Amino acid sequence: MPDKPIFPTPQDAEAAFYEAIERASLDMLMLVWAEDEDIVCVHPGGPRLTGYAAIREAWRRIFDGGPRLRIRLSGGTSVVTPFSAIHTAIEHISVRNDESQRAPVVATNIFVRGALGWRMVLHHASPAPPDTVNETPKILH
Amino acid sequence: MPDKPIFPTPQDAEAAFYEAIERASLDMLMLVWAEDEDIVCVHPGGPRLTGYAAIREAWRRIFDGGPRLRIRLSGGTSVVTPFSAIHTAIEHISVRNDESQRAPVVATNIFVRGALGWRMVLHHASPAPPDTVNETPKILH
Repeated sequence: MPDKPIFPTPQDAEAAFYEAIERASLDMLMLVWAEDEDIVCVHPGGPRLTGYAAIREAWRRIFDGGPRLRIRLSGGTSVVTPFSAIHTAIEHISVRNDESQRAPVVATNIFVRGALGWRMVLHHASPAPPDTVNETPKILH
Repeated sequence: MPDKPIFPTPQDAEAAFYEAIERASLDMLMLVWAEDEDIVCVHPGGPRLTGYAAIREAWRRIFDGGPRLRIRLSGGTSVVTPFSAIHTAIEHISVRNDESQRAPVVATNIFVRGALGWRMVLHHASPAPPDTVNETPKILH
C-alpha cells in the first residue's frame, strides 16, 4: 500500500475507512484522515477527540485486540458540495466470537477534497435506540 | 421576522439555530434548516431523523413546554470549504427551574452555502462523558 493513497471519491475514502476498521489496520485507517488539527472523532458514548494524535491513539486502543469488528451499513444519506461530502448511515456492528446483538449506531462521516483527493475530517458515532429501523421514514405521521 | 432570512455566514446560521432553541421558536428554527430531503438531525440518545418533516416534528415536541432551555457552547472547532462549514462544539444545556447538572453534549453542526446564504444540513448531538473537559486536549500523552 502506498504511503499516500489518493481517494478519487468520498465513497472510496469511506470504503477504506470501514475496511481499515475491519482489518484493525491503524496505518490504513489514519491515511483516510486529513492531516489537520481540526479533525474530529466521536466514538459511541465517548468524548470528542480533536486532532490527528488524539484520534490515532483512540483507534490504536480499539485495534489492540486485532481484527474483530464487522460493520454493515444501511440507510445512507448524502449531501455533496464541490469540496465536501456529508454522509450519514446506520452502522450495524458485530464482534467476532460474540453472537450478542448490538444496538445500531448512527454515524456521520464528513470528507473534504484536497490536493490528495478526498480525506475524512469528521466521524461522529452515537448509539441509536435499539428499535431504530434501517431506513428512517421520511415523514412521521 | 422575514419569511426567508439570509444568513451571510455559517456563524449567523448557527447563532440563529441556538437562539431559536432558547426561544422555543419552531418557525425560526426551521428557517435555519435547508429544505432538503437529505437533511439529518440526531438528538442526544435518539434515532437519526431525515428530512424536513421528521426533523420539524421532533423539535415541535421538544418545544411543547415553551422556552426552557439554555445552551452555552464551548470548545468550538471548524473546518470550512467554499460551500460548507463543519462545526463541532460542546453544548452545556440547562433547563429552567431545574438546577441539576446535566452531562455535556457533543454537537456536530454542518452548514451549506446556497442561493439564500448558509443553511443547516446536519445536527448530530450525543451525550458526552460527564468528565469531558471544555477543551479537549489536542494531544493525548
